[in-house]
Amino acid sequence: MAEQLDDLEVLIRDERLRDLRRSLDALNTGDVVDFLERLGVKDRAVTFRLLPKDTAVEVFDMLDQSLQREIIEGLKDLDVAHFFESLDPDDRVRLMDEMPASVARKMMRHLDPRERSLTNIVLGYPEGTIGRQMSPEFVALPERWTVAQAMEKIRRSGQDAETLYTLPVVDRARLLKGVVSLRDLVSADDDVLIEGLMAEADSVDADHDAEDAARLCADRKHLAMPVTDKEHRVIGIFTVDDALDILERAETEDAARHGGAEPLNRPYLSTPVLHLMRLRVVWLLVLAVGATLTVTVLDRFEDTLDSVVVLALFVPLLIGTGGNVGNQAATTLTRALALGDVATRDVFKVLWREFRVGVTLGGSLGVLSLLLVGLIYGWQVGAVIGLTMLTLCALAASVGGLMPLLAKKLGFDPAVFANPFIATFVDATGLVIYFLIAQSILGI
Amino acid sequence: MAEQLDDLEVLIRDERLRDLRRSLDALNTGDVVDFLERLGVKDRAVTFRLLPKDTAVEVFDMLDQSLQREIIEGLKDLDVAHFFESLDPDDRVRLMDEMPASVARKMMRHLDPRERSLTNIVLGYPEGTIGRQMSPEFVALPERWTVAQAMEKIRRSGQDAETLYTLPVVDRARLLKGVVSLRDLVSADDDVLIEGLMAEADSVDADHDAEDAARLCADRKHLAMPVTDKEHRVIGIFTVDDALDILERAETEDAARHGGAEPLNRPYLSTPVLHLMRLRVVWLLVLAVGATLTVTVLDRFEDTLDSVVVLALFVPLLIGTGGNVGNQAATTLTRALALGDVATRDVFKVLWREFRVGVTLGGSLGVLSLLLVGLIYGWQVGAVIGLTMLTLCALAASVGGLMPLLAKKLGFDPAVFANPFIATFVDATGLVIYFLIAQSILGI
Repeated sequence: MAEQLDDLEVLIRDERLRDLRRSLDALNTGDVVDFLERLGVKDRAVTFRLLPKDTAVEVFDMLDQSLQREIIEGLKDLDVAHFFESLDPDDRVRLMDEMPASVARKMMRHLDPRERSLTNIVLGYPEGTIGRQMSPEFVALPERWTVAQAMEKIRRSGQDAETLYTLPVVDRARLLKGVVSLRDLVSADDDVLIEGLMAEADSVDADHDAEDAARLCADRKHLAMPVTDKEHRVIGIFTVDDALDILERAETEDAARHGGAEPLNRPYLSTPVLHLMRLRVVWLLVLAVGATLTVTVLDRFEDTLDSVVVLALFVPLLIGTGGNVGNQAATTLTRALALGDVATRDVFKVLWREFRVGVTLGGSLGVLSLLLVGLIYGWQVGAVIGLTMLTLCALAASVGGLMPLLAKKLGFDPAVFANPFIATFVDATGLVIYFLIAQSILGI
Repeated sequence: MAEQLDDLEVLIRDERLRDLRRSLDALNTGDVVDFLERLGVKDRAVTFRLLPKDTAVEVFDMLDQSLQREIIEGLKDLDVAHFFESLDPDDRVRLMDEMPASVARKMMRHLDPRERSLTNIVLGYPEGTIGRQMSPEFVALPERWTVAQAMEKIRRSGQDAETLYTLPVVDRARLLKGVVSLRDLVSADDDVLIEGLMAEADSVDADHDAEDAARLCADRKHLAMPVTDKEHRVIGIFTVDDALDILERAETEDAARHGGAEPLNRPYLSTPVLHLMRLRVVWLLVLAVGATLTVTVLDRFEDTLDSVVVLALFVPLLIGTGGNVGNQAATTLTRALALGDVATRDVFKVLWREFRVGVTLGGSLGVLSLLLVGLIYGWQVGAVIGLTMLTLCALAASVGGLMPLLAKKLGFDPAVFANPFIATFVDATGLVIYFLIAQSILGI
């Protein structure tokens, strides 16, 4: 498979479009998507136009929103309307969120009335809520119906529904009473009442945070969850594959921010180099500005440094270790927050745990460095390094554990605020602690 | 909800077990699981024993394997056998992987013959393969059957099946021909042949890597995928919720290793402090040993440092920035590898991209530091810092981009090898570059 895709790239480079078209025909939809995700904007547009119309619609549906946008930008208006209409309402809204508002409005005008009104339901909820990600096309079953009636409705009106495997059960006022699975329906006798098969429903409010809702869906292993309005009426449904998309995006974001960069949110090879650079330069500058603090601190202690140059040798080792300890704690807590294992109200529990972890880690490393450094550079310097290790690790673990919780409490992304901030904070305070300990032990 | 769980913790602390039992009865299964995941070993055992038998079985099924193991260790043999029997074969194998082999064997002996033979199928595949994670309980449909025959089989023998929503279609030799969805079955007429409804199947070989298979399932939005043997006979199925578990575990692992620690693989608050410490100390030591390289480098250049002490001021800033650039690249590529956007054969593409990103980043930061440092510490020092920035960023981005691919190629986890290694490498080589540039510009 892999080599095959490389061969296709050669065909594009050599502009052998007829051969390319023939090779594309032999691929299944998923492979075509994988291939398009490896191409730059221009090659992708060329390749996409070679696809048979049906395949093109399926492929378009599976692409990232950012790539959908780039493809749309290279198409004639008529074709745009066609692809736009072929999407599900929730996918359509996600694409619109990527486009300039004027273009999005224009595309909406081309939709048929039913699709437009479905799209408007989803558009009614703010970005970041589950209402914006749900599908308004679902089949709800009245609780007093029989299995036969339900199956009849499913056969008749199930074509457009996002899923038929988890069906909301409602009362006369369309209030959510529970859910029933298609699995249970097909195994039940025709005259059984729906309310007898119904299970308790985990539902979410449309205003609920999308990532939280997706995590709940994944944790509780639901194939789909009903979305309700404030009165607990069913207004939509969201499925586990949407949950997967949301979680994957959230995790890409966390991973990028751990590394001190903004997330790509699109396939790596399809991203222009300048775009990669822009995503990284802002954080890099912020971190560099923070790091000038270390220059200031060292400048303040230049006399100490001048009289005992050997102290300079351990600066990278010490702040590196401090940074590592802080990072370990921050990463663990960011992940625990994302998984819902820890909440912001657990702050004192976390602080006390991380402080103890930091002291044990710092104690071990401290004794080790006391011995090693002491043997080579003398016991006084050894004591300075050992003591600094202990203090620094305890501080770094506590701050590293605290920061993600604090960030979340203040409404920031825990991943953003945590690692970069910790590195800078630990570097600067670590140096101050180091030189203060050195001054008092070495008597300078 | 949150406050309610805190109240329950108070009940445990005060040993008001009767009140605790009453409060537990009011919670749904998912909430009980959330609560247990916040407790230490002893409190968890006490609470678990208060649950009604039915709830206990459901709760046990939803817990992490590490917590299941701890609970089992606190139970009598008879109860153990009961909980063990209640698990699905694939969940049972995952729990056995957590237990000492002797205990696992003993538990197997208590199983009834059917469950034992199902479990043995899964046990036959090595850890880390999808065969070890699949369910051997599935309903396969012969391609020449009618819809009516199929529905009859589903009703009769569907109780134990892992899923009924994606059904493998097989020929007489049980070779996989395709899949059919229950959704299509219920909407079709009774006398339609299965082969007419069948869609092409994405399947995986049982020996296939579990994480790859899970990623494929998620990317292609399948609710379930058939697992086949070497002859392409269907031997099991794995579902999207198992894929979610596998991916969540993989992402927790990546996140932890980015932070330079081993993953918890269990809820944070349920993990003893000493265990947290052990998960972190090994990497910390490895990194610290690596960081002693920086001490050696600085030791070599001590004379240069002694004659121009001002050079020491910029050491944390320079290696910090180099580390950040390397980290950004490594994080981006690790994630791209995990998502399948990049493969190891793309190594030259990646290297050339990251080198350009590094040069642009280093160029901007270099000019900036030339100006700022030049104004305060003189233009010669400014030139040293600026040039070092440029070189260091280009190097760090290239190495950072390269490492995850190299690690994967060599069969290591990209996340493990990447960030810690990069930090150490960039710190040490960065210092060498810094002092060489300083020596040549300042003429020392």
